[in-house]
Amino acid sequence: MVYVTRRTTFSASHRLFNPNWTDEKNQEVFDKCNNPNGHGHNYVLEVTVGGIPDPETGYVIDLKVLKNIIKEKIEKEVDHKHLNYDVDFLSGIIPTVENIVVAFWNILKESLTEQQKLIKLKLWETESNIAEYYGEDANITSYK
Amino acid sequence: MVYVTRRTTFSASHRLFNPNWTDEKNQEVFDKCNNPNGHGHNYVLEVTVGGIPDPETGYVIDLKVLKNIIKEKIEKEVDHKHLNYDVDFLSGIIPTVENIVVAFWNILKESLTEQQKLIKLKLWETESNIAEYYGEDANITSYK
Amino acid sequence: MVYVTRRTTFSASHRLFNPNWTDEKNQEVFDKCNNPNGHGHNYVLEVTVGGIPDPETGYVIDLKVLKNIIKEKIEKEVDHKHLNYDVDFLSGIIPTVENIVVAFWNILKESLTEQQKLIKLKLWETESNIAEYYGEDANITSYK
Amino acid sequence: MVYVTRRTTFSASHRLFNPNWTDEKNQEVFDKCNNPNGHGHNYVLEVTVGGIPDPETGYVIDLKVLKNIIKEKIEKEVDHKHLNYDVDFLSGIIPTVENIVVAFWNILKESLTEQQKLIKLKLWETESNIAEYYGEDANITSYK
Amino acid sequence: MVYVTRRTTFSASHRLFNPNWTDEKNQEVFDKCNNPNGHGHNYVLEVTVGGIPDPETGYVIDLKVLKNIIKEKIEKEVDHKHLNYDVDFLSGIIPTVENIVVAFWNILKESLTEQQKLIKLKLWETESNIAEYYGEDANITSYK
Amino acid sequence: MVYVTRRTTFSASHRLFNPNWTDEKNQEVFDKCNNPNGHGHNYVLEVTVGGIPDPETGYVIDLKVLKNIIKEKIEKEVDHKHLNYDVDFLSGIIPTVENIVVAFWNILKESLTEQQKLIKLKLWETESNIAEYYGEDANITSYK
Repeated sequence: MVYVTRRTTFSASHRLFNPNWTDEKNQEVFDKCNNPNGHGHNYVLEVTVGGIPDPETGYVIDLKVLKNIIKEKIEKEVDHKHLNYDVDFLSGIIPTVENIVVAFWNILKESLTEQQKLIKLKLWETESNIAEYYGEDANITSYK
Repeated sequence: MVYVTRRTTFSASHRLFNPNWTDEKNQEVFDKCNNPNGHGHNYVLEVTVGGIPDPETGYVIDLKVLKNIIKEKIEKEVDHKHLNYDVDFLSGIIPTVENIVVAFWNILKESLTEQQKLIKLKLWETESNIAEYYGEDANITSYK
Repeated sequence: MVYVTRRTTFSASHRLFNPNWTDEKNQEVFDKCNNPNGHGHNYVLEVTVGGIPDPETGYVIDLKVLKNIIKEKIEKEVDHKHLNYDVDFLSGIIPTVENIVVAFWNILKESLTEQQKLIKLKLWETESNIAEYYGEDANITSYK
Repeated sequence: MVYVTRRTTFSASHRLFNPNWTDEKNQEVFDKCNNPNGHGHNYVLEVTVGGIPDPETGYVIDLKVLKNIIKEKIEKEVDHKHLNYDVDFLSGIIPTVENIVVAFWNILKESLTEQQKLIKLKLWETESNIAEYYGEDANITSYK
Repeated sequence: MVYVTRRTTFSASHRLFNPNWTDEKNQEVFDKCNNPNGHGHNYVLEVTVGGIPDPETGYVIDLKVLKNIIKEKIEKEVDHKHLNYDVDFLSGIIPTVENIVVAFWNILKESLTEQQKLIKLKLWETESNIAEYYGEDANITSYK
Repeated sequence: MVYVTRRTTFSASHRLFNPNWTDEKNQEVFDKCNNPNGHGHNYVLEVTVGGIPDPETGYVIDLKVLKNIIKEKIEKEVDHKHLNYDVDFLSGIIPTVENIVVAFWNILKESLTEQQKLIKLKLWETESNIAEYYGEDANITSYK
């Protein structure tokens, strides 16, 4: 197995709050991330796929193909969007960096073929806040 | 003259639109930056101050002091905020990276002493979109 | 005046040699940069344009427009190319980082309007080798 | 086990094509990476070695030693070279980032002692295209 | 399991030498790292914690909490310090990047709760010298 | 004029204090930068030289030559050293980032020829603390 990774970026806004909680509790737990008008980030996403390089191309997966899958399935949905309101597959989910990365996994998993084994997603919200997911226990709970 | 620079970051959301225009015109000009729920960035700000190093301290300006001025006057106002709705000094201003950097100049200018000469502001909206301002023609027009 | 910058990258190969010289002289002067089969870099280019933000848009220049000009006039010509053989506007020019940046200036200068004042180009060949050009004395000499 | 990593860079050119294919097929599959005169990259390589820190030195491996092994065995062969034509150990191999990283593994594996356990190689071709290899199924197929 | 990482930096000085050795042996083994007055680095530390996102918050661990633990237990002890003389928990330990990362593990391990599973520490001494630790065989030997 | 820049790094330790002051005053002014055993940084230095590209080489200055001048005159003196005690040309100077950059200018100025015009030095002490110098009023005061 060799692992190839494609890196991409997108800009989005979000707000951390739990609609089942009082304003006070949301403020206490999420603090400045709970700003009602939201705030935003330049997210960085790395998608890692594993496999054996094809003897005819030397490719585990053509990274141009992987780039297009990520663009079509992820970037188009989240770039220049508000993650709480504009993204169907994040509906009802508190958009923490760890919840988003699991949601991305579920989307990408079904966009790859059998041979293109999704190994890892890594998502930077800022240079200092990062989440990684390897497909273990992919359930995220909606607050709905 | 020696120039010292302090770098800081903040996360905010914004929407590019001109309230005097139709939705169609806004969409045509600002495209995906016009998403109604906004989108966001991890902004990077560099503030450059010039002067002669003080013979007793070796400092043009104590960078801890400059850091605190930026924190108090800029970061507190814009970090984890929506630049269109939450920031008094950006009210009525389309928050493009070039308009924001001029607005920051006006704020910082009055927060420094005579000796602490503000030379340059540099603001990254993304790694690829950057504005710089040296205090020439500081007027920005409100759409109000 | 406010200055806005658009950053882009491209991958190209080149060889430093002067066809008017002997192999020995080329090797002595250009050393490993003279490898006959060439070598390559991920170049980074920053294009800076200055102006007054338009009161209706807040833009000095729409960075999407600047991005497209750079893509059309520069990237299309040099990305995934050999700079010695594949680029018309570099023909007869030793592709050092300083010669390339001047050649780019001449191309971009004529692609901008009167209001879009080209201020500066910055070109990284590696993280450690950089050239900047502000349009002073733009002549580069062909070895032809 | 503690893992130590040494990072290095080199500049090289390459061309992706399969000599057993027609020009049309090469163009279709490899697109702009198939430019006949090649193109190039600033590659970044990270070499990770694992072990128990020596009680007398605190070193898993002296990183100066690892640096020199990488310089001697890898950099000397590939820096400022064309990977298709100038590198013996890449002869007959399509120089995709995943094939190169496996070829580097085979070289480095035999340059380390029993105690210096090679754990991982990570190779960036660009900031966005990356391959990793942990020594699983190290065969790469020559097109010869 | 999802993994979240908090990144932080600190500036410290150190000297690599073994007090049980002669000056000559220290110089031979540690070379310029053995400078008697020490030298220093801007260290970068990444702390990775794994868990299941809490359905009510979407957090594996509140990264603000993790940030504060790292600040309190690590940064306060090592930032702007000399690692050989000023840090209790490094006393008697040769401060190589691999020994420091293990020492940090031992400190952080006891600062987290049962649910906050410490997975990995990654420490950069420079951009090119890095150590990682996953808690395997955590003993480091004092030279005392 | 075209400007070429060579970037390099070095690791050093320093302590900010004025020997003419009491310990209390040093602590009050320099705070944690005054740690008696010192602390350290990975400094980044960029040296910019301006000129007209030579028609025969395409070089303003051969960057390999500039690299060697910086290595010989600066790196050799400061890398893996304590800037307060180990560097002759910093003797009696409080090693703030702005004082160091002026001292480097004085050294480099006399190491270049007439044609190699030193334009700018930029020195990062950390990612967030930076000094730049263009040769204006180069006097730095010794505390001796």
